[in-house]
Amino acid sequence: MIKVGIIGAGRIGKVHVQSICTQVPDAKVKMLADPFLTDETAAWAKDMGVSQVTKDYKEILADPEIDAVLICSSTDTHSPISVEAIKAGKHVFCEKPIDHDIDKIQEVIDALKDSKVKYQVGFNRRFDHNFEAVRDAVAAGKVGDIHVIKVTSRDPEPPSAEYVKVSGGMFLDMTIHDFDMVRFLAGCNATEVYTEAAVLVDPAIGEAGDVDTAVITLKMENGAIAVIDNSRKAVYGYDQRAEVFGSKGMVATGNDTASAAVISNESGVTGEVPLHFFLERYMAAYAKEVKCFIDAIVNDTDTPLGVMDGLEPVLMGLAAKKSMEEHRPVKISEVR
Amino acid sequence: MIKVGIIGAGRIGKVHVQSICTQVPDAKVKMLADPFLTDETAAWAKDMGVSQVTKDYKEILADPEIDAVLICSSTDTHSPISVEAIKAGKHVFCEKPIDHDIDKIQEVIDALKDSKVKYQVGFNRRFDHNFEAVRDAVAAGKVGDIHVIKVTSRDPEPPSAEYVKVSGGMFLDMTIHDFDMVRFLAGCNATEVYTEAAVLVDPAIGEAGDVDTAVITLKMENGAIAVIDNSRKAVYGYDQRAEVFGSKGMVATGNDTASAAVISNESGVTGEVPLHFFLERYMAAYAKEVKCFIDAIVNDTDTPLGVMDGLEPVLMGLAAKKSMEEHRPVKISEVR
Amino acid sequence: MIKVGIIGAGRIGKVHVQSICTQVPDAKVKMLADPFLTDETAAWAKDMGVSQVTKDYKEILADPEIDAVLICSSTDTHSPISVEAIKAGKHVFCEKPIDHDIDKIQEVIDALKDSKVKYQVGFNRRFDHNFEAVRDAVAAGKVGDIHVIKVTSRDPEPPSAEYVKVSGGMFLDMTIHDFDMVRFLAGCNATEVYTEAAVLVDPAIGEAGDVDTAVITLKMENGAIAVIDNSRKAVYGYDQRAEVFGSKGMVATGNDTASAAVISNESGVTGEVPLHFFLERYMAAYAKEVKCFIDAIVNDTDTPLGVMDGLEPVLMGLAAKKSMEEHRPVKISEVR
Amino acid sequence: MIKVGIIGAGRIGKVHVQSICTQVPDAKVKMLADPFLTDETAAWAKDMGVSQVTKDYKEILADPEIDAVLICSSTDTHSPISVEAIKAGKHVFCEKPIDHDIDKIQEVIDALKDSKVKYQVGFNRRFDHNFEAVRDAVAAGKVGDIHVIKVTSRDPEPPSAEYVKVSGGMFLDMTIHDFDMVRFLAGCNATEVYTEAAVLVDPAIGEAGDVDTAVITLKMENGAIAVIDNSRKAVYGYDQRAEVFGSKGMVATGNDTASAAVISNESGVTGEVPLHFFLERYMAAYAKEVKCFIDAIVNDTDTPLGVMDGLEPVLMGLAAKKSMEEHRPVKISEVR
Repeated sequence: MIKVGIIGAGRIGKVHVQSICTQVPDAKVKMLADPFLTDETAAWAKDMGVSQVTKDYKEILADPEIDAVLICSSTDTHSPISVEAIKAGKHVFCEKPIDHDIDKIQEVIDALKDSKVKYQVGFNRRFDHNFEAVRDAVAAGKVGDIHVIKVTSRDPEPPSAEYVKVSGGMFLDMTIHDFDMVRFLAGCNATEVYTEAAVLVDPAIGEAGDVDTAVITLKMENGAIAVIDNSRKAVYGYDQRAEVFGSKGMVATGNDTASAAVISNESGVTGEVPLHFFLERYMAAYAKEVKCFIDAIVNDTDTPLGVMDGLEPVLMGLAAKKSMEEHRPVKISEVR
Repeated sequence: MIKVGIIGAGRIGKVHVQSICTQVPDAKVKMLADPFLTDETAAWAKDMGVSQVTKDYKEILADPEIDAVLICSSTDTHSPISVEAIKAGKHVFCEKPIDHDIDKIQEVIDALKDSKVKYQVGFNRRFDHNFEAVRDAVAAGKVGDIHVIKVTSRDPEPPSAEYVKVSGGMFLDMTIHDFDMVRFLAGCNATEVYTEAAVLVDPAIGEAGDVDTAVITLKMENGAIAVIDNSRKAVYGYDQRAEVFGSKGMVATGNDTASAAVISNESGVTGEVPLHFFLERYMAAYAKEVKCFIDAIVNDTDTPLGVMDGLEPVLMGLAAKKSMEEHRPVKISEVR
Repeated sequence: MIKVGIIGAGRIGKVHVQSICTQVPDAKVKMLADPFLTDETAAWAKDMGVSQVTKDYKEILADPEIDAVLICSSTDTHSPISVEAIKAGKHVFCEKPIDHDIDKIQEVIDALKDSKVKYQVGFNRRFDHNFEAVRDAVAAGKVGDIHVIKVTSRDPEPPSAEYVKVSGGMFLDMTIHDFDMVRFLAGCNATEVYTEAAVLVDPAIGEAGDVDTAVITLKMENGAIAVIDNSRKAVYGYDQRAEVFGSKGMVATGNDTASAAVISNESGVTGEVPLHFFLERYMAAYAKEVKCFIDAIVNDTDTPLGVMDGLEPVLMGLAAKKSMEEHRPVKISEVR
Repeated sequence: MIKVGIIGAGRIGKVHVQSICTQVPDAKVKMLADPFLTDETAAWAKDMGVSQVTKDYKEILADPEIDAVLICSSTDTHSPISVEAIKAGKHVFCEKPIDHDIDKIQEVIDALKDSKVKYQVGFNRRFDHNFEAVRDAVAAGKVGDIHVIKVTSRDPEPPSAEYVKVSGGMFLDMTIHDFDMVRFLAGCNATEVYTEAAVLVDPAIGEAGDVDTAVITLKMENGAIAVIDNSRKAVYGYDQRAEVFGSKGMVATGNDTASAAVISNESGVTGEVPLHFFLERYMAAYAKEVKCFIDAIVNDTDTPLGVMDGLEPVLMGLAAKKSMEEHRPVKISEVR
């Protein structure tokens, strides 16, 4: 039985508490920490069977019974708490991104060099049934050599301008998932990025210094070309698709819906919109990624997504931003 | 070059004129006959390249240059003109049904016994790309032994009460196509029929002595069970589907639409309704059935749908009606 | 917090233990009873947080702390334990069918007359997201008046001949779910049944006195016609579909799959087969039905599926069997 | 009745002869010209009802009875024959591209300035039912403001290296259709192009100096971003899709297939591959574009695709090539 401490009791922290309590029999949440811990959250945690709550995450790191921590706090704390936790000998599951600053990620990489702890980054979509099925087909050789990878990722609602200002920009906040997806599907790194982006959804996003619509082209190490298209607002819901095309065929996935029901009337033949909310869409994936992390500890194997998998999408995001700013293709090596 | 006479210049007669003129290079329409021939139709026929028009179909039968006739006149004339045409040595393509009266169909069968002419019945749906693909899969063994056959057939608009009165009833007017489809897909005859029917679409149809909704179960000679569901009115269009289920799998077909375009918005993900009008839906099938008839003449082979294929669906329709009236399963042998 | 005792630790009993422990926060499994309780099951129950296990279900009925029981034992014990539990003042969730014998179900009905306990029957499919969406569309008037209901239900694997012998026959064992589904979608009872059935999957099933393939037509109180098609073996998996057609349109649902991935190559464009195993297909529905039962207790409302909803499908099954044996349509009133 | 001369009796010339003879009642093919005219082609033309054949297209231009010409000869002759035909007072339908050289297209533009003849370029895909439906939805405001346009265009078979050498390169030979499609769907011109391309299908194509795989990003005048992905070889057939995403929703179209039949077995649920051959896929579109050309003459209206619609895609192709060669985004104004 792996004893776990969870740092951060926000939306995603709570998802992980719930997943571990109900779907990961080999783990138990011993402590939950949040600097703004409310009585309500404390009561909820008790109901879920969490033994202890605290406002100070250092209590988790100091608890010798705790084997592993999940870092679900604000983005700027991911890398310093990662380093602290590693030094405290705890296995670490860190929400994405590790940091927007490459040097900070390097500190985590350095800390791991002298350590035997497991480290996993929270790119949940790799654990989604649809994307897994696409990746499995590619890995099984069903599309042959990969020629083109396409990822469509559109949010159902744009973020507020306030959030945009502190988000690190769309490429590091939103596209970072798609950069990871491209690496996952390609089975290799990107070498170059070209960004075409615009403010088409909400002028306030532009005023906050960001973009809301983008088409990003990538060259991959294996010769394939990848393209991501992003929008901060799809009125029909959370649009999450991927396609891998190659010498022997194509594998593609569409969206999940609440049901398979279809209504036919004079207006047409109408199925349901994609699931709207990311927590609903990826609920099973969130549980699976944590289960895989616990399994890696129990079986002493590599985690499915190590620290380098956390670094590369950040590099891709930085290169995408530079490409947009300098209006030219940018090599990943320029930002590494 | 096969010279053809067409008897009946109604909707379906015109479809055949057009098909032959534009899509059957081995045939030419020499004469078009209709007792109510208008100047407009005569002008249209001339434009299409038809050499001659007449109000008297006997001119067609008397013309020694004409090899084949297509009988597209009113249902009650199908069998007598068939017999006349056979005796005149013309190959005959006869619109469905040959007759509602078994004895009249028998007269055609008898006439054919002393003759070398080709005879084809106009069950156009067998020549439709979707139903052909289903039948081809079955014939290729892809579903193994047939266990269950399902045919859904719904009209976009109910007929008028006036038409209903002279139609012979829904089973002989509408379901007859589905009876043929069941035989086509099963590759054998039915042995027994049970009908569950109701008036749910339009009370006027009930007042005219007919039904407008039915589920008809059939036992087939090969042991399979078939089921047809009919409605005189589907608000979303002409619904024409089939499914064959067996020991090795299932093959099914949905409807054709005007385009593959799909719109996604807050209301759902909406594709087009099925093609509404039977002439549009089966345009290619009408051309293909006539082409096959001409090919059978040119190559001196059997037509794909002989006189017995015209008889069986009428028997099935009569048994279906008897089943409804007597509220019990009825064997085909009872009406043969 | 509702305290629950679960009677029967077979496959479905365990599903309910797990659902309650992980997905029903308002309930807790206090005791699990099974006459053949193994050490392994006892250990599993302890892991799940069940406080007590026993071989004698009467301990559950005698425990004053226990509010409700779930009867998941063998079919022949459903009705007697139901009566005992009702008399012991426990709320009862009873797996389907209550009994194959109408008189035994009547005893449960009688017991409930003198009681204030809640009673729910385990027709899980009503709680499935797809069938719920179909029913919701019907209830919202989206298809207008109902004309035709179609339910397709095919198992992925036929049962053994041994099981067939004690199963009560396909209509009470398998079709009973579809009878319930027809009532659920129609919103009313059936009045008459006609059965066309055969042994097409496995001769051993015939030798055991049962059938494995059927098309069953039903007249509904609201005038609609329903048709169920069943097979004991669909090689492509567990096929669970429904369609409701009416004056304003149609709503239909297809199957669930493990993913939305689709592979295109020379052989075609291929999606995944339906989920194969009923526990996987209906896992969420099993959790939801129990949650609804607990909610009905907590809020003191009617359960969504009362004892009469347990009776009607048995009557439909008995009528279907009689129809097959006597080769004629049978009114439900004949078996009531 | 418009009398037409057709210049070029290759594959596409013959398609147009056939379309006009069977589907364009207002036009008649009077003469067919081809420098390599065979007896076989002459006989075929006679069968189709073409009055006259010749090896010298100037006979067509000299015939005062001929109102309009269709230029279906080799690409290098498109612009000079266009100019000659315009000067001879003939309406001109010219196969795409008008020329690979902007100056040559300018000569056609200049010739049209002093003329009242109609001029149409043969971008057939605009007349396809699927792409028309997408454009109609966009024009009807169903997607609101356009944000992203995606066009997927993959050939079923790569061209020979010999053809590649004289083709003008993939962008002018193949992508040119997609450039037109982007303009058609956007309703405006492109302003900038970025090309990412590779040789992944066949090294012989690379040796011939061309590429076979590309992702091309475009900025549109209306602010939208468009992306085209091309491959010279999709093993599953001719893949022709488009998607327009905007502020109010998305409209997308998939491929056409030979039938709607779907087979379910242990291997999956399999539909048909896209139609393989472009002539089959676009047969109706070829007929419709010529019909529209004839209608424009008969009604004295603008053709749906004028000479400027022929120029722009060539500019886009030249910019795409320059972008690839110089590895940077290229403005259309740089090549204009």
